[in-house]
Amino acid sequence: MQEKLNMTMKCENFVVNAIGRRVPTIVNGQPVIPYKGLRQHRPTGRKYAPPIPTCIDYPDDGNKVVSSLAEAFKRCGLKDGMTIGTHHHLRDGDLVNNTIFEIAHQLNVKDLVWAPSASFPCNEPLIEHLQNGTIHHIEGSMNGDLGRFTSYGGMKGCAVLRSHGGRVQAIQDGELKIDIAVIAAPSADAFGNATGAEGDSACGVLGYSLADMYYADKVIVVTDNLVPFPCMPFQIQGNYVDYVVVVDKIGIPEKIVSGTTQVTKSPDRLLLAEWTAQFCVEAGLLKDGVGIQTGAGGTSLSVGLHFHEQLKKTGQKARFGFGGTTQYLVKMLEEGVLDYILDAQVFDLEAVSSIKRNINHIDLSVFQAYNYHSKGNYTSMTDIVILGATELDTQFNGNVVTHSDGLLLHGIGGWQNCLHAKCTIIPVPLFRDRIPVIVDNITTLCGPGELIDVVVTERGIAINPLRTDLLDKMRGTSLPIVTMQELKEEVDAICGVPNKAPISAKDEDTVAIIKWVDGTVIDSVRKVLE
Amino acid sequence: MQEKLNMTMKCENFVVNAIGRRVPTIVNGQPVIPYKGLRQHRPTGRKYAPPIPTCIDYPDDGNKVVSSLAEAFKRCGLKDGMTIGTHHHLRDGDLVNNTIFEIAHQLNVKDLVWAPSASFPCNEPLIEHLQNGTIHHIEGSMNGDLGRFTSYGGMKGCAVLRSHGGRVQAIQDGELKIDIAVIAAPSADAFGNATGAEGDSACGVLGYSLADMYYADKVIVVTDNLVPFPCMPFQIQGNYVDYVVVVDKIGIPEKIVSGTTQVTKSPDRLLLAEWTAQFCVEAGLLKDGVGIQTGAGGTSLSVGLHFHEQLKKTGQKARFGFGGTTQYLVKMLEEGVLDYILDAQVFDLEAVSSIKRNINHIDLSVFQAYNYHSKGNYTSMTDIVILGATELDTQFNGNVVTHSDGLLLHGIGGWQNCLHAKCTIIPVPLFRDRIPVIVDNITTLCGPGELIDVVVTERGIAINPLRTDLLDKMRGTSLPIVTMQELKEEVDAICGVPNKAPISAKDEDTVAIIKWVDGTVIDSVRKVLE
Repeated sequence: MQEKLNMTMKCENFVVNAIGRRVPTIVNGQPVIPYKGLRQHRPTGRKYAPPIPTCIDYPDDGNKVVSSLAEAFKRCGLKDGMTIGTHHHLRDGDLVNNTIFEIAHQLNVKDLVWAPSASFPCNEPLIEHLQNGTIHHIEGSMNGDLGRFTSYGGMKGCAVLRSHGGRVQAIQDGELKIDIAVIAAPSADAFGNATGAEGDSACGVLGYSLADMYYADKVIVVTDNLVPFPCMPFQIQGNYVDYVVVVDKIGIPEKIVSGTTQVTKSPDRLLLAEWTAQFCVEAGLLKDGVGIQTGAGGTSLSVGLHFHEQLKKTGQKARFGFGGTTQYLVKMLEEGVLDYILDAQVFDLEAVSSIKRNINHIDLSVFQAYNYHSKGNYTSMTDIVILGATELDTQFNGNVVTHSDGLLLHGIGGWQNCLHAKCTIIPVPLFRDRIPVIVDNITTLCGPGELIDVVVTERGIAINPLRTDLLDKMRGTSLPIVTMQELKEEVDAICGVPNKAPISAKDEDTVAIIKWVDGTVIDSVRKVLE
Repeated sequence: MQEKLNMTMKCENFVVNAIGRRVPTIVNGQPVIPYKGLRQHRPTGRKYAPPIPTCIDYPDDGNKVVSSLAEAFKRCGLKDGMTIGTHHHLRDGDLVNNTIFEIAHQLNVKDLVWAPSASFPCNEPLIEHLQNGTIHHIEGSMNGDLGRFTSYGGMKGCAVLRSHGGRVQAIQDGELKIDIAVIAAPSADAFGNATGAEGDSACGVLGYSLADMYYADKVIVVTDNLVPFPCMPFQIQGNYVDYVVVVDKIGIPEKIVSGTTQVTKSPDRLLLAEWTAQFCVEAGLLKDGVGIQTGAGGTSLSVGLHFHEQLKKTGQKARFGFGGTTQYLVKMLEEGVLDYILDAQVFDLEAVSSIKRNINHIDLSVFQAYNYHSKGNYTSMTDIVILGATELDTQFNGNVVTHSDGLLLHGIGGWQNCLHAKCTIIPVPLFRDRIPVIVDNITTLCGPGELIDVVVTERGIAINPLRTDLLDKMRGTSLPIVTMQELKEEVDAICGVPNKAPISAKDEDTVAIIKWVDGTVIDSVRKVLE
């Protein structure tokens, strides 16, 4: 693996894919499949099959505790070129990810692949390990400083960005083989059963590590709260765990979950939220039994509040709310306007506490919520999702990872997965810092326009022409229904047509690829010129 | 597959295995591995990898309901020689298993393999389908009439008996490939999420179907209680389900779970229970934090009651109780002498109701509890298990499937798995119906004597000589400590040395094999001569 990584170009054999983007067919020495269009790529073959373990190799008393993470890595046979899977449930309070690569560096291991379910600003120290050769490339999100570093071409390999569902699909399908998974756990027992619901570093759930638990060859649980066997109710099953490491602190509690999540106070954003909610009511989307995902951004939260009020007013009840959980969703559950919270990650303290006390606050895995290589998933059964975007074009194609300056500053998260909902609504301002959000050519194409149904801006609401049903329903509304072209002209009149970002045109300057939910490559990201 | 099954002998190439039993190395045309001794067989290779599915092939609205089970079978491509996996949570009230093969017969499908997690007397009608060629053989337990039929050589193929953990191991390892799993579910939604906790046919949990859910190529959920999506809290995940079938009735409630489980009233059995409990106390086994499995037999339940009293009296607390759950275990939990019920199957109504109301009554899977090809499992961490046996020899080897008359009347259940506990105690009467339980040569060897620690009879308690620690601890006890040889002599003096059972001595008369927890063949069962 190592030789292969070093000997090959980051990306080779470029083609134009089905949505008109230039993408490589070889990435980090491995073949990849260009995007073929919606519902066009049918996987062949079988799921990844981890080696069969035996109880012979594990202690009868169930005590898998070893003295340190370095010791666990040695026993796992950590070596050059391996892939390390981690989760992001500790969010910006995570103290484990940086430690992993610090240890790998001390052990003089090179060219590792880091495959986190997401990265956060706190992971900035990993730039050093990308520079000193410990990490070859990242398969995961590239937020903030890591993104800037990647955009300027600092990474040895090519970054691979996947949605939350895409990561699970890739691990399940053997496209992303996790050699060693490290699962930071707020509470765990010596056998490796673990939960995120208890402990000083409580983060609620650990569902993003389930794929790693099932499919990684070796699994290490790292905890700062060792409890007597059995750690119940389990979220991680010790039967899949090789070693348990006890450390002083896995995270900084106040950075793991916000004390509270807050709705926006910006009058512009409040208007977007109000219009979005009104749209959902008038289009008949917000109905009894509705399934919703509103997310945790300030605007989304405000939309959620409107939904709450509306349901209460009409005596209706939402069936399920899912995605990252906040105090607002918990309030809906506890006030009886919502039957179930289906929880894949937790954003605030109230949500952490709720998962322990509310039986209808359910720990849902990413396999269930988002995996496209599954016998169906929850996204296509969700009635309304509210998402963001950094850029949209007049064909409703969306970007969520780069900004118009070309910098890769965000992960895909569940965005691509959620696009499969029955109605995808993106409330966005027409421009940010005088840079248009609606443009002719988006910097990076993360989601095809066919899946984006409604764009709500402060100057009007554009409905995708493919959604003739919605256009029909909104005839005669008092809401300002416009076209994307009109929005584009309006923003150009305000901001001027934007300059092209200073991005390299060369194939060899590809710094990252964007995978679609089916594992194909929907776009590539080029180096930003300094 | 079909041709192979028909063309080969049931069993071929016999050898004597490491525990001295004559076993085949080819069964139903497939190679099998003879038992190598405890902790000697190390698996190679990888887990079974099911085909990768895609959401493209499943309805966006999540509605997988088809008109009938026959229709579901057609869509699954049911054909000759396939293996059908089912669970036994509906116990003797099951109405689904017989229907499956009735339909297969009507569809003129032949030579199916039935792989249930257990069978019950209610499955007697399947004898017809074993006779008419619909079912080639059974991989699972052979209770009552099915066992008698098998013992007299009625089955076309060779039956394969596995423990509960062994079934999961075999499915996981690809040794037992489930083509189509049929999961009878007391409640389910149209997407296939299902639970055993709710509905007229409630059976508590559905954990025995998890292996089928994960590894079968096609999965059908059959329910008599279709609920709105999402059916929560889920035990079966719709993401693994192909079709949902709604029928009038999946089971007969009063036969699914007993209204109540009852302790023994027999004075002899009460004595065994009392001595067993006293032994555990005096040997220091019943201590604070103890993990126990007492089972649901009348004697076991009585042992459990003694444990309850003893813990209460001494102010100690058991950490976990597992195995089949009864009202008595629920009472321990609710009276605070037990921290957790780890539940793999439910035996009575009180246990069904408890799983809904007690957060510390946990739905534990067979993967977690019993799978030997796992990174450890719960059995070796359990302090005390109380088991039964049909026969024991003076080397402490045990039989749990056949009687001294050679008839195969019981499944292995969790028996082999539980032998791995820290202390395995078997309370048995010295004889039943004047037939000795302790014999020179057991009819079928299901568990090696090294793992059976204590045998409690009405004439004394034998401690395995390997357990010098227990022998030491019990020095000076008032309990009658004896040797197995003494017990054997005593029973022979009462009953006379038993006649040899009328069993065929011919290899070609092998009707069943017994797998060990690691997938090797520990013994074979010969035809009973009429």
